[in-house]
Amino acid sequence: MGWEENIRRVVPYTPGEQPKNENVIKLNTNENPYPPAPNVQKILQNFDVDQMRLYPDPEASLLVQAIAETYHVQPEQVFVGVGSDDVLSMAFLTFFHSNKKILFPDVTYSFYDVWAELYHIPYETIPLTETFHINPEDYTIPNGGIIFPNPNAPTGVFENLDTVEKILQNNPDSVVIVDEAYIDFGGISSLSLLEKYENLLVVQTFSKSRSMAGMRIGFAIGSEKLIRYLNDVKFSVNSYTMNQVTLACGAETLKDKAYFETCTNKIIRTREQAKQNLRSLGFVFPDSMSNFIFAKHPEHDAGMIFQKLKEKNIFVRYWNKPRINQYLRITIGTPENMQALFTALEKILQEKE
Amino acid sequence: MGWEENIRRVVPYTPGEQPKNENVIKLNTNENPYPPAPNVQKILQNFDVDQMRLYPDPEASLLVQAIAETYHVQPEQVFVGVGSDDVLSMAFLTFFHSNKKILFPDVTYSFYDVWAELYHIPYETIPLTETFHINPEDYTIPNGGIIFPNPNAPTGVFENLDTVEKILQNNPDSVVIVDEAYIDFGGISSLSLLEKYENLLVVQTFSKSRSMAGMRIGFAIGSEKLIRYLNDVKFSVNSYTMNQVTLACGAETLKDKAYFETCTNKIIRTREQAKQNLRSLGFVFPDSMSNFIFAKHPEHDAGMIFQKLKEKNIFVRYWNKPRINQYLRITIGTPENMQALFTALEKILQEKE
Repeated sequence: MGWEENIRRVVPYTPGEQPKNENVIKLNTNENPYPPAPNVQKILQNFDVDQMRLYPDPEASLLVQAIAETYHVQPEQVFVGVGSDDVLSMAFLTFFHSNKKILFPDVTYSFYDVWAELYHIPYETIPLTETFHINPEDYTIPNGGIIFPNPNAPTGVFENLDTVEKILQNNPDSVVIVDEAYIDFGGISSLSLLEKYENLLVVQTFSKSRSMAGMRIGFAIGSEKLIRYLNDVKFSVNSYTMNQVTLACGAETLKDKAYFETCTNKIIRTREQAKQNLRSLGFVFPDSMSNFIFAKHPEHDAGMIFQKLKEKNIFVRYWNKPRINQYLRITIGTPENMQALFTALEKILQEKE
Repeated sequence: MGWEENIRRVVPYTPGEQPKNENVIKLNTNENPYPPAPNVQKILQNFDVDQMRLYPDPEASLLVQAIAETYHVQPEQVFVGVGSDDVLSMAFLTFFHSNKKILFPDVTYSFYDVWAELYHIPYETIPLTETFHINPEDYTIPNGGIIFPNPNAPTGVFENLDTVEKILQNNPDSVVIVDEAYIDFGGISSLSLLEKYENLLVVQTFSKSRSMAGMRIGFAIGSEKLIRYLNDVKFSVNSYTMNQVTLACGAETLKDKAYFETCTNKIIRTREQAKQNLRSLGFVFPDSMSNFIFAKHPEHDAGMIFQKLKEKNIFVRYWNKPRINQYLRITIGTPENMQALFTALEKILQEKE
């Protein structure tokens, strides 16, 4: 029918599998192996269901305020969204609005090119170095904006703040977005650069270090000016994105700083142990500062290992894409999850192909 | 700074006030005066908080399945989003993608032109008749898509299905969206037309008749083909929009059909009584089939009444816009809310201006 000629066709992003089988060891979507802060349970139990009949606070003040306090910024510097994907998508729509190409690494979060294409934003991917690092000199060409994750996904590689600041220094005329989904696992946040750079937007999420992927909470911190522009666009799309329960649970979880430290430290320790175990199995990988390791084995095909792990009900992530099709992205689970993985890998590597 | 030249500037939509003062009688945002179905409380109390660490089901199967069963359609015909604003915004992005103007009424939901401008969709508004009705003959000009609410907002006027079907018959080459946010208060849904029209999308919400504005749940039902296109775009923006608690509460509330009938019938009865009371105060209004009445008083300025009600802590909605700046949109609250409103109006109308 003719109506199909008037519509937009996109190739949708394929998220990591969410198997409904509960016996799976799930190391494929960078979820946290530990539950959210215990006080979240009380929030649900005491929630006044009657008030669900009312619209939520469109300014999400409860959560915005809690984030502002946690990160020592003004509430006017905080934007919240339905996961960092919502925050980033709004940021693309708001800040990347020229005819100039935006820049991001060739190996990076797989949504960036999807959003660019969806919103008709021209883009150019900049190859990472041989060791999967960003060379800030590559980001000196004219552009309409810059975005990169730090630590990068799916490599786990962290760039120190000198690199970030060089990019900012060279690009006063572009919004520079640092996507810090994995910053809490040992990296150093670019938040300290906000005082000097009005065009810097730092994006983080509750999905990884705060164990709330299931609740969809992301946020951005930037100058008041940037956040105002972002809110203007968000209010044009949907004024009420954050529901009441989400606001209450999100604000509450930020209060328990000790629990947060304990969980992230456990994951960091498990990761460092996992690096040793993977090395002794013959894997190589860039050093990771995230809650995953991006590893390849010089003698075994990654696609094959991926399949054989799956047969053993262990899910990791694999992309059949240029430069990375010999790598597996392995989320850091509990020590028990990781032990099961190493045992399985040991067997797989011993089998004849 | 130069970066501001590369960004998108929009005039954001201004939502109705959400006063934090609890003594307000809130008849300004078409919320339901009754709480959600009682079983929702149990869902929160028994919710397994540990699972929040995992991403939600990207296909939102639990909720999609419940909607499909409730409306006797296939799950493949159901799309869900973060309130009907999210659903409609995605529908604009997906279905209105030609260089031809889309059409909608001049007096209508105030987000339509905002989304059209945001996504650079050309549009033309078609004047409603003198009595705020849609004349289907006006929708025979070439177009890139059509959208209208039924009942219309903010007028409350319902168009019978003959009108909807005439528009569909004349527009096989456009997607036609019927925005049925207020359909459960006595109107007849266009869902029955889905069998004949592959290009029809019907959008509804849990925010009004199901008392869940605070949880942000909207949905669309259409042909499998339309829904597939819509999901492709949605998965490109954000794969995981519906959080776990929302999915569970939304699916549960659909089960209690008796409670739903009771509440909507109470609101309908209160509305019919309100029509009599408003008439006896001298107000005139198009007949409403929604949970609000769009009324003007021939002898009193609407902006003045709006202000004076506000001073008495009674909030209704007022727009200073062409054609409607002498009208107040009054949400149907409880009988007690409405009695307070009538008492206040009586006083205001007696005062000298």
